[in-house]
Amino acid sequence: MVQVLPLPRNESGIETAIGILKQRFGDRLQTGQAIREQHGHTTTWIENQPPDAVVFTHSTEEVAEVVRVAADHNVPLIPFGTGTSLEGHVNAPAGGISIDVSQMNAVLDVHAEDLDVVVQPGVTRKALNEYLRDTGLFFPIDPGADASLGGMAATRASGTNAVRYGTMKDNVLALEAVLPSGEIIRTGGRARKSSAGYDLTRLLVGSEGTLGIITELTLRLYGIPEAMSSARCTFPDVESACNAVILTIQMGVPVARMELLDAESVGALNDYSKLDLPVAPLLLLEFHGSEAGVAEQAATFGEIAEDAGGTGFEWTADAEARSRLWQARHDAYWALKRLRPEAEAVATDVCVPISNLAEAVSRSQAKAAEMNLICPILGHVGDGNFHCTLLIDMNDADERARCDAFVAWLSTLAVELDGTISGEHGIGQGKIGSLPKEAPTALATMQAIKQAIDPQNIMNPGKILKSES
Amino acid sequence: MVQVLPLPRNESGIETAIGILKQRFGDRLQTGQAIREQHGHTTTWIENQPPDAVVFTHSTEEVAEVVRVAADHNVPLIPFGTGTSLEGHVNAPAGGISIDVSQMNAVLDVHAEDLDVVVQPGVTRKALNEYLRDTGLFFPIDPGADASLGGMAATRASGTNAVRYGTMKDNVLALEAVLPSGEIIRTGGRARKSSAGYDLTRLLVGSEGTLGIITELTLRLYGIPEAMSSARCTFPDVESACNAVILTIQMGVPVARMELLDAESVGALNDYSKLDLPVAPLLLLEFHGSEAGVAEQAATFGEIAEDAGGTGFEWTADAEARSRLWQARHDAYWALKRLRPEAEAVATDVCVPISNLAEAVSRSQAKAAEMNLICPILGHVGDGNFHCTLLIDMNDADERARCDAFVAWLSTLAVELDGTISGEHGIGQGKIGSLPKEAPTALATMQAIKQAIDPQNIMNPGKILKSES
Repeated sequence: MVQVLPLPRNESGIETAIGILKQRFGDRLQTGQAIREQHGHTTTWIENQPPDAVVFTHSTEEVAEVVRVAADHNVPLIPFGTGTSLEGHVNAPAGGISIDVSQMNAVLDVHAEDLDVVVQPGVTRKALNEYLRDTGLFFPIDPGADASLGGMAATRASGTNAVRYGTMKDNVLALEAVLPSGEIIRTGGRARKSSAGYDLTRLLVGSEGTLGIITELTLRLYGIPEAMSSARCTFPDVESACNAVILTIQMGVPVARMELLDAESVGALNDYSKLDLPVAPLLLLEFHGSEAGVAEQAATFGEIAEDAGGTGFEWTADAEARSRLWQARHDAYWALKRLRPEAEAVATDVCVPISNLAEAVSRSQAKAAEMNLICPILGHVGDGNFHCTLLIDMNDADERARCDAFVAWLSTLAVELDGTISGEHGIGQGKIGSLPKEAPTALATMQAIKQAIDPQNIMNPGKILKSES
Repeated sequence: MVQVLPLPRNESGIETAIGILKQRFGDRLQTGQAIREQHGHTTTWIENQPPDAVVFTHSTEEVAEVVRVAADHNVPLIPFGTGTSLEGHVNAPAGGISIDVSQMNAVLDVHAEDLDVVVQPGVTRKALNEYLRDTGLFFPIDPGADASLGGMAATRASGTNAVRYGTMKDNVLALEAVLPSGEIIRTGGRARKSSAGYDLTRLLVGSEGTLGIITELTLRLYGIPEAMSSARCTFPDVESACNAVILTIQMGVPVARMELLDAESVGALNDYSKLDLPVAPLLLLEFHGSEAGVAEQAATFGEIAEDAGGTGFEWTADAEARSRLWQARHDAYWALKRLRPEAEAVATDVCVPISNLAEAVSRSQAKAAEMNLICPILGHVGDGNFHCTLLIDMNDADERARCDAFVAWLSTLAVELDGTISGEHGIGQGKIGSLPKEAPTALATMQAIKQAIDPQNIMNPGKILKSES
């Protein structure tokens, strides 16, 4: 596990606040070790830093009550949805109280005519789509995990179909949030666009719980496409695959998903999902539209792919065949982990302009090989976003050090190539040291905003921005 | 003209700052009355409040120099692009210095493979598209006027094709801006998505020059569609037209433009542009895609329109016929003004969820009739955004008062109908009194951010937020 330094604790404040909240919330405030650890970071490689207590809130007003008590006693608050974040967002480096909103899981209002829905933050994306099943509508953003929508907004999540539907930034219309003062604010609205004042919705999206706690979201919905088709094509190398991606985007083909798997990942998928894909760089696509539309899109891509040197182009609108292929992609994390079962997976998340993607992927492959690291690569390449899944023996100090060096090298490379250190996972604790590389001039403004809205620094301290203490 | 109260002036600071800048910029600092008035508000109904001087900057570093001098002497700064804003954004209610960036008009870098472009803020949208002509790419956002891209970002502009391509919020990837301290910051980047820290790009977009001065923009580009088609259809009433809109959006038809003109507007267009459209509510659409795609989209809309009671559905992919129809739409402002040549046009800008659009438009028509106001209506209805163009005799105090009452009534209605007081024009001075209606709980947070970033309130004071003085 990678150590994250603890921050100074306000012992007496924490004790007092927990005492007050215990009286108010009874059994809905828990301090047992198991539940506390489960509310610290549990996925992948950052060590677990449990909060001192977990409170399960049922309403916005309850969240505001907890916040006011914490503010009165200067106690850190860590919002918690499903705990599927990858960068230590739910850790409590200064202790404090985890506000678990997973029981605030009501779908409050579906406006089918307007293609929007109002939900509480604990609704997960799969639960929402289950709820919407009979409406002909769906919420597209798909980060893989069945994350809570509040958490997805807080981390500005996206996933495989951002190339078509955008990220949470593009799909949150309005928010309700509790500020560090305990005040409840509403930002944005249900209108499709607005130029009324500062865009606080977009400021809260991606703020990782450091400015306020999201208690309600209004999200965009989409009609379930009349037809979907999938296509795949194998390429001799990453460069030619990336060339096909660039042309497809440039032609304006409204591709819904476009995933790159490197040869190592394809091999792992073959083993895990019993497939027999050629072990070479693979592009996997999905198209949404009318029946004629998806056929046309697939055919256009087929021509582009062939011109770019692709082979074995296949496409299908058959639901079962489509689903088998995409299930394999969704299982990729487990397939990759099986390459080295005793290892921990450390996922990187850089994103570069697509013209720099081939260079970024090839140099990552070469660097990992040079550093003797196992590093299969998967990418949401329509966006230029790719994940190196480093499989690291955490008991091997030298290997851990090489992993750290690789991650630091990669973030520098991303910035050099006009990209970002985080396409979709957020900064959290994991990338807090790298953010100054990407945003050297903007960091002070972020800090000024944090200071203005949360002068006590009680909202998820130690995430995105280094605490000054 | 509508009076906007002046704010207290810092006479000695203004005089000193102008003296220093005159020495530095020579003839590029102007204080003549004509040029000063031309840099105050000139469009429509808000009175002109000229700055004390206009400085023409040629580089980011020069903008920063001006800002540092103004900050040293506590002098207001008003950024100026083309002066086409509609809500008094370029007025100088406390005096001060207009920074005219129109000569910072270089296209710095076209990244055709990545579909982005880096421009200086004075480049206008038409100049950009002219520059891009041979690349097969275009920048879609079209607010009507040939506005500067810096100004369009600052006001979060959009226009007729936001339903397909979004607003400036969706199309600005990165910004360079000079903060009130004179510091130069860079936000965002060329990667298609990022979850690296607070979204300062989206905070600056729509901040109307109150947080900083935009000195460089990275914008998304799109491939020029292989084919375009236009369609039109007449409806018996606004409700049935809106029903067709709702169904078209819900079916996921990727319509590029969808404009509603009420009967009064259609009549004005017929007169002005020598057309013979039936004088009844009209929907005007444009589709972008492949040849087969645009034909399919037009046909789908045709079926929907007919089901909704539309008549006279026609579509064409012929460039000349398309352009004649859309030119008429683009000339609508002048056509409407001719309904009453001696009047001033006061444009409202509310935007509501599309399920509330028919109600909002019908009630606006009824209210205007009841108040004896001439008020043709045009709408970007795919977004739920519509403009009442009130034609007001500004010499008639009673009519002016009725106009004010109508505008206030409409902003209340928009909020009641879950909408926004401004779909695309911004707040400026014109809607500063209405913003609290829409954002009663969020306003204090906007003020806290303004205070944190611009504690001296030198950046475009008297816009968006009321100055505390």
